[in-house]
Amino acid sequence: MLTVLLDYEKKEPLYYQIYKGIRSEIQANHLLPDEKLPSKRTLASHLQVSIITIQSAYDQLVEEGYIRAVPRSGYYVEPTQQLPVISDNNTDVIPIEHETESKKYKISFSTSGVDTKQFPFSTWAKLSRRILSEEQEHLLQAVPPSGLLALRKEIARYLYEFRSIKIFPEQIIVGAGTEYLLALLVQLLGREKCCAVEEPGYKKTRKILMQNGMTVKSVSMEKDGISIKELYESEADIVHVTPSHHFPLGIVMSVNCRASLLNWAMQSSERYIIEDDYDSELRFSGTPIPALYSMDSGNHVIYMNTFTKTLAPSLRISYMILPFTLLKKYQEQLQFYANTVPSFEQYTLASFLRDGYFERHLNRMKKTYRKRKDQILFLIRSHKLASYLKIKGENSGLHFLLETHLGLSEKDLIETAESVGVHINGLSYYYANSDFNIEYPTIVIGYTCLTENQIQTGMQTMLDAWQDRFNKKNDIVKKII
Amino acid sequence: MLTVLLDYEKKEPLYYQIYKGIRSEIQANHLLPDEKLPSKRTLASHLQVSIITIQSAYDQLVEEGYIRAVPRSGYYVEPTQQLPVISDNNTDVIPIEHETESKKYKISFSTSGVDTKQFPFSTWAKLSRRILSEEQEHLLQAVPPSGLLALRKEIARYLYEFRSIKIFPEQIIVGAGTEYLLALLVQLLGREKCCAVEEPGYKKTRKILMQNGMTVKSVSMEKDGISIKELYESEADIVHVTPSHHFPLGIVMSVNCRASLLNWAMQSSERYIIEDDYDSELRFSGTPIPALYSMDSGNHVIYMNTFTKTLAPSLRISYMILPFTLLKKYQEQLQFYANTVPSFEQYTLASFLRDGYFERHLNRMKKTYRKRKDQILFLIRSHKLASYLKIKGENSGLHFLLETHLGLSEKDLIETAESVGVHINGLSYYYANSDFNIEYPTIVIGYTCLTENQIQTGMQTMLDAWQDRFNKKNDIVKKII
Repeated sequence: MLTVLLDYEKKEPLYYQIYKGIRSEIQANHLLPDEKLPSKRTLASHLQVSIITIQSAYDQLVEEGYIRAVPRSGYYVEPTQQLPVISDNNTDVIPIEHETESKKYKISFSTSGVDTKQFPFSTWAKLSRRILSEEQEHLLQAVPPSGLLALRKEIARYLYEFRSIKIFPEQIIVGAGTEYLLALLVQLLGREKCCAVEEPGYKKTRKILMQNGMTVKSVSMEKDGISIKELYESEADIVHVTPSHHFPLGIVMSVNCRASLLNWAMQSSERYIIEDDYDSELRFSGTPIPALYSMDSGNHVIYMNTFTKTLAPSLRISYMILPFTLLKKYQEQLQFYANTVPSFEQYTLASFLRDGYFERHLNRMKKTYRKRKDQILFLIRSHKLASYLKIKGENSGLHFLLETHLGLSEKDLIETAESVGVHINGLSYYYANSDFNIEYPTIVIGYTCLTENQIQTGMQTMLDAWQDRFNKKNDIVKKII
Repeated sequence: MLTVLLDYEKKEPLYYQIYKGIRSEIQANHLLPDEKLPSKRTLASHLQVSIITIQSAYDQLVEEGYIRAVPRSGYYVEPTQQLPVISDNNTDVIPIEHETESKKYKISFSTSGVDTKQFPFSTWAKLSRRILSEEQEHLLQAVPPSGLLALRKEIARYLYEFRSIKIFPEQIIVGAGTEYLLALLVQLLGREKCCAVEEPGYKKTRKILMQNGMTVKSVSMEKDGISIKELYESEADIVHVTPSHHFPLGIVMSVNCRASLLNWAMQSSERYIIEDDYDSELRFSGTPIPALYSMDSGNHVIYMNTFTKTLAPSLRISYMILPFTLLKKYQEQLQFYANTVPSFEQYTLASFLRDGYFERHLNRMKKTYRKRKDQILFLIRSHKLASYLKIKGENSGLHFLLETHLGLSEKDLIETAESVGVHINGLSYYYANSDFNIEYPTIVIGYTCLTENQIQTGMQTMLDAWQDRFNKKNDIVKKII
């Protein structure tokens, strides 16, 4: 007689213990295919449990396909295939998650990262609390595929007032980060298309486009923007540019280059320009550079921007503006995708924009970052090596280039810095192809995440180390001569 | 002499008015290419502003490429191409965003949607407030690419305790919705692969896989799960299944079918099963059906689940569990993508799981939904048409099938329901190919978003309308005879 050892001390219900017991008998082939199980009554009396308990166990076994119920006859074991068993020698290897690179160094002049200490957390928390109490009903409703309309209206207003971009809120698509929106855009534009990207440029853009199946071609940067000649030669349909502040060269695209770019796009209804306006808000002097989008009258520019750079990296909110032709296509083909940003963040950000906090936050950040930039420039200009160093692209955005004339290679400069605990990136890192031509070794300096003390220590230490290296090398040169 | 009309009443700074004035003179060709601009001093005295004001205006024009500065000579107009101008007859057409379909009807027995009234909002708000005050420092930091470790630990614990799934938290990838994770998975598995999907099945899955470039093949459902024979014939590398509760047929995949499926996968290291466990938590009777993932010993099952169905659609949090081989590939190739879920939601959900609220919430929901299901089944079974109707798949999950033997077509049934303000979906809707074989017209009934009153009114009205239609038709038949 089928027996299951029942443990009355266990938290597990009896029916479940019986179900598991019979299941393992079947799996171990102790109960054979088509063998009849004891009747519910018999088994209940044998195990001294209620018939209902046996019924529940049998029901679960039927549901999962271990046994079948034959009306007016009873329960039979189903002939089941054995579950495949292999020795798995992988399961004890847990792949370890890598820490981000910059953590290995004491001080990093990397361009990534945002100084989250600047974030007006108490204001954000205040708004969050208000949203939690006032918007209870709305908070749980799914937001429209393109994002909360209230947020899109605020973004449209902000763009009109601060970037002179005139759009309808309906043109805005809100998504969980620029990376997500770029992948969505690939689906909208067509995976089979070829996209030109700036060389040098932001490496992730290239990677995301390629991961999503697009062909990517590099187009060189001229002194006033992307090379229009090479763009024509590339036969690309799409081009991704950073006109307000090229990353990493810091070039502002000239009006001449902009006009040529728009002319290029207008030669086919299938050509599009993706304008990544990633740090236009954080320009230090003069007025913001007008967006390419606002110069376009022909439905060819897609504008992208993010709140990750201006607020906090943990807030995944970016947006893009689609020209009308693409918007129609998006609504027809891609609106089945649910929006990827939680409603809570969208409501809070809408309030943050509406109540003028974003503007105030930007102004405060600009002041802070400008102070850091001035400090760092002062340190460089007052160092003994100053006459061997040239600062480039320091007027826009959150990084600049440090061109060196020390006779030391980029690799040498980076390793020397590393040896004293300072992390820097060389310009060559941002080139996808190896045939680039950098006349003088150049370092890309970011400073947004560093305190005044860190800037002071880091820059001083690095420059002093470079000087040592420079002196030693010249000593050797002298000695050889 | 170059003149700009200055408006001292305006909020716009003077330098900006001068910059705009000169810019429009250049754009209108009133200032010709290579023409020299007045010196700063001359223009300042002419416009009666300070030299610094003129300097700022000229700086901005230089930065944007409208003019150039020649050292020791002055400022010259840059020869610039005209911006292309076309008449744009599209800009006044704002594509209107479509409302969701179900809103047109008074009562909808649709399967989508969650009853957000069940969401323990005050608990969630309490946890949110606690997170806002306690986690200030951590909240602004970017979360790891795969998600907050604290959340992944809680998910792992939950899966172990309630689904008997043993995994390392490191195997979990948290993302902004199942749709996003599915797209990520396509990148991981390879866009060139062929994926088999269940026919009938969830339409969006097919759509998302196709939008992301995969080839998709339909494989029929047998009475105990997906057809293994057709799966072999399809030559697919990947298969997407809903073993715990097939959508929409409600079938629980039998252990026999599971074993065959795992055997299929183990015949090649490149074969994978995507297990979508979308509503396994909301099973009404017996214990949860074991996940296919927990039966796999060979690194071939990818498990996916979401909190959108169990909590609220506005919370975009889903996760997937990768087997070790794929996890390694993910870490090597896709970890450059930033995580798509804001840290705030991840911290709050981690607390919600840790403090046992999720379990309590599920129990409450199960009770509510079961009550609604019982009510709706009672209404059907006690209606005059009862002997013409057969209820199928009512034991698992949040929907069931209503098979009709009324001699009315599916279209007829749907239209009759619509004429009295009730929205329903026919089973045929869930088939991708048109050559399906449904013996008797069948309706898919969902009830999660309806109140008791709505269920009462909606079901009664619909069944009565069906009866009228049924009687009329039989009258006609009688009269003809």
